[in-house]
Amino acid sequence: MLPRATLIRRYHFSASHRLHAESLTAEANREAFGKCNNPHGHGHNYVVTVSVSGPVERSTGMVVNLADLDGFAQEHLLDVFHLNNLNTLPSFATVVPTTENLAIEVYRIFAGFPGRRIDSIGIEETGNNAFLYHGPGTNLKSRSA
Amino acid sequence: MLPRATLIRRYHFSASHRLHAESLTAEANREAFGKCNNPHGHGHNYVVTVSVSGPVERSTGMVVNLADLDGFAQEHLLDVFHLNNLNTLPSFATVVPTTENLAIEVYRIFAGFPGRRIDSIGIEETGNNAFLYHGPGTNLKSRSA
Amino acid sequence: MLPRATLIRRYHFSASHRLHAESLTAEANREAFGKCNNPHGHGHNYVVTVSVSGPVERSTGMVVNLADLDGFAQEHLLDVFHLNNLNTLPSFATVVPTTENLAIEVYRIFAGFPGRRIDSIGIEETGNNAFLYHGPGTNLKSRSA
Amino acid sequence: MLPRATLIRRYHFSASHRLHAESLTAEANREAFGKCNNPHGHGHNYVVTVSVSGPVERSTGMVVNLADLDGFAQEHLLDVFHLNNLNTLPSFATVVPTTENLAIEVYRIFAGFPGRRIDSIGIEETGNNAFLYHGPGTNLKSRSA
Amino acid sequence: MLPRATLIRRYHFSASHRLHAESLTAEANREAFGKCNNPHGHGHNYVVTVSVSGPVERSTGMVVNLADLDGFAQEHLLDVFHLNNLNTLPSFATVVPTTENLAIEVYRIFAGFPGRRIDSIGIEETGNNAFLYHGPGTNLKSRSA
Amino acid sequence: MLPRATLIRRYHFSASHRLHAESLTAEANREAFGKCNNPHGHGHNYVVTVSVSGPVERSTGMVVNLADLDGFAQEHLLDVFHLNNLNTLPSFATVVPTTENLAIEVYRIFAGFPGRRIDSIGIEETGNNAFLYHGPGTNLKSRSA
Repeated sequence: MLPRATLIRRYHFSASHRLHAESLTAEANREAFGKCNNPHGHGHNYVVTVSVSGPVERSTGMVVNLADLDGFAQEHLLDVFHLNNLNTLPSFATVVPTTENLAIEVYRIFAGFPGRRIDSIGIEETGNNAFLYHGPGTNLKSRSA
Repeated sequence: MLPRATLIRRYHFSASHRLHAESLTAEANREAFGKCNNPHGHGHNYVVTVSVSGPVERSTGMVVNLADLDGFAQEHLLDVFHLNNLNTLPSFATVVPTTENLAIEVYRIFAGFPGRRIDSIGIEETGNNAFLYHGPGTNLKSRSA
Repeated sequence: MLPRATLIRRYHFSASHRLHAESLTAEANREAFGKCNNPHGHGHNYVVTVSVSGPVERSTGMVVNLADLDGFAQEHLLDVFHLNNLNTLPSFATVVPTTENLAIEVYRIFAGFPGRRIDSIGIEETGNNAFLYHGPGTNLKSRSA
Repeated sequence: MLPRATLIRRYHFSASHRLHAESLTAEANREAFGKCNNPHGHGHNYVVTVSVSGPVERSTGMVVNLADLDGFAQEHLLDVFHLNNLNTLPSFATVVPTTENLAIEVYRIFAGFPGRRIDSIGIEETGNNAFLYHGPGTNLKSRSA
Repeated sequence: MLPRATLIRRYHFSASHRLHAESLTAEANREAFGKCNNPHGHGHNYVVTVSVSGPVERSTGMVVNLADLDGFAQEHLLDVFHLNNLNTLPSFATVVPTTENLAIEVYRIFAGFPGRRIDSIGIEETGNNAFLYHGPGTNLKSRSA
Repeated sequence: MLPRATLIRRYHFSASHRLHAESLTAEANREAFGKCNNPHGHGHNYVVTVSVSGPVERSTGMVVNLADLDGFAQEHLLDVFHLNNLNTLPSFATVVPTTENLAIEVYRIFAGFPGRRIDSIGIEETGNNAFLYHGPGTNLKSRSA
């Protein structure tokens, strides 16, 4: 049996967002989001961490070819999100672009990466703030128990 | 079913400590702790990482309101530990303030955070040194298997 | 029962490598490894992360004595790999020195650390690139499910 | 004579901006600013570095009281810029909010700090991108010669 | 003429201190130093940056042999300050151990390094806080003009 | 008169080198370079910092168009040095590839950047080690006085 390892690859993009839920009143929006609800938005340098596990191929010694993952990320992640406003993207037409929801969306994107299944997506919003998503159906409680 | 995500939030404080166990002889203390046993102590810039998992609320798109977690951390963590000497705190009256024990104590503090259960506490003592605690009753061996 | 915690310790070394598989044709090597296959090699500042879990000893408040782990790492990791060319080491005589394989080799080395079992080895190749290995027989799929 | 030292203090804020010059045609804007000219903007985690030099006071051993500088920064920098859109601020009504112009504006703000003269303002836009401004009348050429 | 370059070398130590001036009243101490005046002290992971300029030697391509500078730093800086309490050192018997004064003291130490003159000493107290000292007789105002 | 600012841009490349001077005996090489003289070489993740000062253009608010600088750096720096062995480059045929000499060579390269004069080149060899070069004819002593 081949040994299994995990690749963790980071991608960087800069984007803006406004936290505002159509389903909430103006007051509830301000209470939930504070200054992040201001109508003109603000922004971040986001850092995405993609984790991919799999067998280490005997001939190449690799879990996945980085050039393939980078090409996929360029087309489906960076060309879409970098230097953009998250609220204007179709994915966030009715979904608040919190970093939790952003992680869920980025997971959905990388679920389309052919050949290897993604373990999880992490996103740093600032140096003191990050979010992890392990995909639908994840029983997180059992993971930490 | 709502998707579940994990928030990882970092808090910073600067404190001093002396590693010294009352239950050990002077010689055993020096052997266990080396220069960290010097009677005048030394200090660190500690970085605490709080992990909280839960469902991503549909309306707010959040696992937990950061303002709530930050308010709790300010009152129960930073106001107590920042710019202080760990050995003078009641929690370390009979417990050696190693970073392992500090992580256990910080976990105990955040266990009191209302509404969301903490997954784990991480503490960086230096850039090359960190400790994780997942709470009482954790079977760590099964986690890595 | 004693609480269990995890120590995460980082070690740094600078080394060079060339990615080239004897089992592949020149063309297949270039396709798999790109510029990393150039015959003169290149190099990195590698960062190794050793994770060790265990009970926090009551008297010392420690999972493992750092001085012991550091001494082991100096002799078996740093004295061997730092300022060296990975391809010239016996471990990589017939194994491509990708960072996946490097993580497996470093895990094998720390498996010899007496007294405490290693959880996993992480290696950062660059700031945007890291690899994790949890040892032989690890069922990674069940970990992330 | 008292020894002179320099304090370097970092402040963090997250904001959005759109690079667009009213004085340029649409085409010239796209050529100058590329994707940064998209009408919806994007954003960054900005890091401001304030440098202040002066004599080290004999009694306090300080160049400037950090609490004073932090209070000034909170009121005049962070409360204004954090979680905001730079283009909506009066300072950028007719000035393109590039990070060069942001540094000039932040310098102007800290020039109002009482008691100590600011040496320079640095702003990191991303981890790979920073700008320095040393104030009006600075002959930079002679500095590097 | 040989080209001239600058080496910038970082050293790390962890220490504690209490900010308290004998020349000030208890109230003036609290006003000047706030929580840093608490009698039990606190601590930091200090990062020292030593800058050394000189001609790049033709045969070795080096400004200074790092092994020499590291040996000097180990003996005169790290063995003295690491894992210690600054207030207990002779240098701070009558001088408040602010990071400004620490930078001045570390400069005095490295002024004894044989062969090459030190340009400046920088000390990071936290990730958001650093101090620079360029030595006695420095006219800082002319440097930034 | 337009205000003048400084852009500081970072580029990353991974390369290997062997420190060995043809003009020195085997013993003098070992004494000067230690393990860095081993015949198989080692490597680093180098970080290059390019500083460019100039007037902030009124219409664009920029010192220099980043896209221009990045294009130049890709062609003349990254395509040449990234994933390569420094000793095999013509520039280091008779010059020891220390990071001091690497900084001088990178300065020479960016001196060819059209339109703006480079202030200085910085190169980080590791997180604890960096070098600065301000160009030929620089009187460093007067800079720090």
